[in-house]
Amino acid sequence: MRGITYLLGTVVALSGVVAYMAPATGGADTEAAPIFGVKIPQGYRDWRWISSAHEAGKLNSLGAVLGNDVAFKAFRDGKLPYPDGSIIAALHYRNVPSDENNMVFGEAQSFVPGAPTNIQFMIKDSKKYAATGGWGFGHFADGKPGDAAFMKSCFPCHEKTKATDLVFTHYAP
Amino acid sequence: MRGITYLLGTVVALSGVVAYMAPATGGADTEAAPIFGVKIPQGYRDWRWISSAHEAGKLNSLGAVLGNDVAFKAFRDGKLPYPDGSIIAALHYRNVPSDENNMVFGEAQSFVPGAPTNIQFMIKDSKKYAATGGWGFGHFADGKPGDAAFMKSCFPCHEKTKATDLVFTHYAP
Repeated sequence: MRGITYLLGTVVALSGVVAYMAPATGGADTEAAPIFGVKIPQGYRDWRWISSAHEAGKLNSLGAVLGNDVAFKAFRDGKLPYPDGSIIAALHYRNVPSDENNMVFGEAQSFVPGAPTNIQFMIKDSKKYAATGGWGFGHFADGKPGDAAFMKSCFPCHEKTKATDLVFTHYAP
Repeated sequence: MRGITYLLGTVVALSGVVAYMAPATGGADTEAAPIFGVKIPQGYRDWRWISSAHEAGKLNSLGAVLGNDVAFKAFRDGKLPYPDGSIIAALHYRNVPSDENNMVFGEAQSFVPGAPTNIQFMIKDSKKYAATGGWGFGHFADGKPGDAAFMKSCFPCHEKTKATDLVFTHYAP
């Protein structure tokens, strides 16, 4: 009886875990981005938060950078280069004023993510993407990948951040 | 033997899970915030991302709102009121220009989280916090809770967002 109780406990614990890990949002069998063949990874919206980012000017963007478990751990531990299997997701939205918040605060101070603009991914696979520093890039707007000309622009820009293994984002503690 | 193998598999699976769930950052046996008795919840830095936020002006803040599993699911599913057990964490940092990014972009456009300023929590417990809409509030700077006068200001402000169960943040898809 004690054995059965233990087993039951285990099954319950495992079920809870499966429910926790099952990705409920993000990703689908989408078209792959040219050059790198990167698709939107299943469940990316459930990944952990690495940092936020605001781009002023033309981009006028507010968003977040999330990482899968491999990437998140490397960020948190400050471990470079990122190990194979790391995937970093940058979720971008219009940077819009929050009328709702500003009414409460009594000042036009509050900006929040508006409509989604695009999602970008970096996937570390040092063999497959050896020619581009070990990283494959993906860019998607409304689920549609960027075209080849756009995708060609990823690596030359990220190559400028060699000291951080081609990654702009730093972990927010 | 088959039984032992199964059991071993289970133990290995559980160990993996424990390793995954073990909070590696965030939380400690900190001092409780006055009035509500809220402490920094263990492992909050590993919670999932609900949205980012930028406060211009005096606050000059950039950060993120994270949720524990209960809160995250309610946000994602648009379920109101938030169920008991929901905990929402707002992580705030100085909004600072990224010289590193701006050099690459060739324009002063990029803002990132700088030094942490404070962390705030909302904990839903409809019985314990019945007098404040079911929410207990916590505010911590450098691990130290806000004083009673500060903590008194939480509820009257959040009460203005009754339509969203006293929560300002919306889920970024």
